[in-house]
Amino acid sequence: IAKEVVKLLEMKAQLGGDEGKHKFVLKTPKGTRDYSPKQMAIRERVFNAIITCFKRHGAEVIDTPVFELKETLTGKYGEDSKLIYDLKDQGGELLSLRYDLTVPFARYLAMNKITNIKRYHIAKVYRRDNPAMTRGRYREFYQCDFDIAGQFDPMIPDAECLKIVHEILSDLQLGDFLIKVNDRRILDGMFAVCGVPDSKFRTICSSVDKLDKMPWEEVRSEMVGEKGLSPEAADHIGEYVQLHGGLDLIEQLLQDPKLSQNKLAKEGLGDMKLLFEYLTLFGITGKISFDLSLARGLDYYTGVIFEAVLLQPENDHVEEPVSVGSVAGGGRYDGLVGMFDPKGRKVPCVGVSIGIERIFSILEQRVEASEEKIRTTETQVLVASAQKKLLEERLKLISELWNAGIKAEVLYKKNPKLLNQLQYCEDTGIPLVAIVGEQELKDGVVKLRVVATREEVNVRRESLVEEIRMRTSRP
Amino acid sequence: IAKEVVKLLEMKAQLGGDEGKHKFVLKTPKGTRDYSPKQMAIRERVFNAIITCFKRHGAEVIDTPVFELKETLTGKYGEDSKLIYDLKDQGGELLSLRYDLTVPFARYLAMNKITNIKRYHIAKVYRRDNPAMTRGRYREFYQCDFDIAGQFDPMIPDAECLKIVHEILSDLQLGDFLIKVNDRRILDGMFAVCGVPDSKFRTICSSVDKLDKMPWEEVRSEMVGEKGLSPEAADHIGEYVQLHGGLDLIEQLLQDPKLSQNKLAKEGLGDMKLLFEYLTLFGITGKISFDLSLARGLDYYTGVIFEAVLLQPENDHVEEPVSVGSVAGGGRYDGLVGMFDPKGRKVPCVGVSIGIERIFSILEQRVEASEEKIRTTETQVLVASAQKKLLEERLKLISELWNAGIKAEVLYKKNPKLLNQLQYCEDTGIPLVAIVGEQELKDGVVKLRVVATREEVNVRRESLVEEIRMRTSRP
Repeated sequence: IAKEVVKLLEMKAQLGGDEGKHKFVLKTPKGTRDYSPKQMAIRERVFNAIITCFKRHGAEVIDTPVFELKETLTGKYGEDSKLIYDLKDQGGELLSLRYDLTVPFARYLAMNKITNIKRYHIAKVYRRDNPAMTRGRYREFYQCDFDIAGQFDPMIPDAECLKIVHEILSDLQLGDFLIKVNDRRILDGMFAVCGVPDSKFRTICSSVDKLDKMPWEEVRSEMVGEKGLSPEAADHIGEYVQLHGGLDLIEQLLQDPKLSQNKLAKEGLGDMKLLFEYLTLFGITGKISFDLSLARGLDYYTGVIFEAVLLQPENDHVEEPVSVGSVAGGGRYDGLVGMFDPKGRKVPCVGVSIGIERIFSILEQRVEASEEKIRTTETQVLVASAQKKLLEERLKLISELWNAGIKAEVLYKKNPKLLNQLQYCEDTGIPLVAIVGEQELKDGVVKLRVVATREEVNVRRESLVEEIRMRTSRP
Repeated sequence: IAKEVVKLLEMKAQLGGDEGKHKFVLKTPKGTRDYSPKQMAIRERVFNAIITCFKRHGAEVIDTPVFELKETLTGKYGEDSKLIYDLKDQGGELLSLRYDLTVPFARYLAMNKITNIKRYHIAKVYRRDNPAMTRGRYREFYQCDFDIAGQFDPMIPDAECLKIVHEILSDLQLGDFLIKVNDRRILDGMFAVCGVPDSKFRTICSSVDKLDKMPWEEVRSEMVGEKGLSPEAADHIGEYVQLHGGLDLIEQLLQDPKLSQNKLAKEGLGDMKLLFEYLTLFGITGKISFDLSLARGLDYYTGVIFEAVLLQPENDHVEEPVSVGSVAGGGRYDGLVGMFDPKGRKVPCVGVSIGIERIFSILEQRVEASEEKIRTTETQVLVASAQKKLLEERLKLISELWNAGIKAEVLYKKNPKLLNQLQYCEDTGIPLVAIVGEQELKDGVVKLRVVATREEVNVRRESLVEEIRMRTSRP
């Protein structure tokens, strides 16, 4: 019977396929979206701010393919590997969509034997995660990455990455923010002194990483229940991960009887101190918090890690501002390039990734709320006519304007009404109308109308380009 | 035995996997490439020229996901559908990478019930084609699309698309070019009067499309041999497809005893005449050729089609310039949006796609040949020191510069040699060096050095930003 049912269902599907040419679902894939012209206008503003900052810090730009050999991504993302999109085996190489821009960057460095570069890369990455699109969590989303690769004196590039996050978040005026900083070596040292077995470092680290979304009690029960950590070790971790502060906390931990005995932790704390000294010179420690609960999920980090969160304005009843989610993150990954190099040669790297989908969401909501009118084109002038049978004259004039570099449009109608042409300008924000008519043609002039003021002035045809430029140049 | 061999091979592969951590191939997927900073600099120049043109014509911009539901792409590309990249079924929807930007655009219009838009879209598309990377043929490549959707008076938007191709190719100074124009209705009419059965129109059209790569004899034998067309019909087609010209040829064909009796061909020829009248007003007919051999492979075209080719400079012995390949193409597709609309409502569209990979290849080769030095960063000034122990002072100064919007770099070393700092400027093209030293700090000045001339001048610290801006503003 089951077989028959399958057969019947298949037949039904076929029938549906034939008669129902238009019956398929009209949508984008789950977790993805289109960008409308209005959204693109906001997106370009954000990109501009970010690219300007990356260039201010002397970065070059590269690009890599959207997919990589599957094996390039294998073993780089720990527990998150299950979220990688694979391509179908259609013969040839096995491919996967990139999961971030960091692993392709490391592959690029190893492949081209580059040991020294400061680059940015802005592109989409792909994760088969549970989307929460209203909060800006997508399966296809942009990352804006800035990384510094090379053997340098400690913590100088690391400090610059934090300066960059600070500049971008200040520039975008998203409200108050906080950059949490920690170090994988401090975490590992902490795990060691708390009695976590070496083999459990990574998985316990993943649990700690959930502290921004789960209360400690739940994380603790995951550690003890699912991951088999001893309750004592978990409680010990629990004491450390509630600590956060600045130079004072670093000094305190450098004196901590257990941590100070651990080589890794001591190294990490020493570098953290140096980092805070550089951040003080940059004048940005006010928004930086050394936070022992920050873990970051990815396997490849080896040193400093950080994450920036936006803070909601304080409510009356809430003591501490509530975090609304991460908008940037990064850290040091000194081993990743070596995983690709045939001889295992390492290239130390540190970098930051700006996650702009949440930033878009916030700015989009803000634009909606403010009823700010966003222009989606840059057209300076509409070439119009007041009478019929002037299509040829409109096309001749607009061709002259285009050739002179003027941004111009014309309605695609033989005989449009003047009113419709003016309405089009109102709707799309075009500031000027160049009107041709019998009389103007005879007189060798064009009537230039300012949409906002309805002012009209006759301009000699040979001066029209100059006049439009003058009237539309930004103040 | 075969089974055992498979088992052994699997075991071997596993062993290889364990010992050979670094044994995998370090490469990008077949038919794809990275862009180095130098290549990106060229790419951005090309994009700028294209985007500037699209904006000059009043286009908005949109973006769509890199993959679509598989069924969205089904049945749109004719014989080329086999080149679509599918994603692996990992549970959930079946997805494919976009094959062009036109089908996603049509899906976007239908989904959002948009009947009227002029938009551009620049993004990568994916085709499992045989790559020929030295000639700029990739499996991942950019398309730059400009399309006009809406019900308008005939051939005005079509003419604008051709004007855009003309502007972009002129702007990029790629040498001489030719834009071939034809119309699907003229082709279909021609097939009808040549005696091609209706059911063979599309496949014979695909054969004609190969005429730019194959001689007529081969195309003819494909038609007759593989596709079962009568030799008489093929020969008849052969006579037509060698015709090319301008208004004169259109007039001639409008008088053609057979073609003029065919309704479709007559419509197409009438519109072609109108198109040439508009192109005359735009002053670009010199580079336009009405060419009956132009077919274009894609199924969705319904009216005007066109393709731009670059022409090699004439050799002494060659009469006609040789085409080195297509760099732009497009046409009218009035039925595609209706395929997505639940009620089959049509939105007429016409558009152009600039294929920039070949343009990149040409410009890259040109840059190589000219030994032009391309800067890959925009850094205005390097903050340097002449003595040791001044890292803190360098960081303080660069922070001031960054905050003032100056593009500045610093070497990530505690005590770099001045010579190394100057060398870095030479290598990367940084024009200025701001040098701090004990004496300068005491005097409240910074020594500003012009790399090109070695001129040095003391600038008061509070005037430094202004001085750098002045010296690096473009003339």
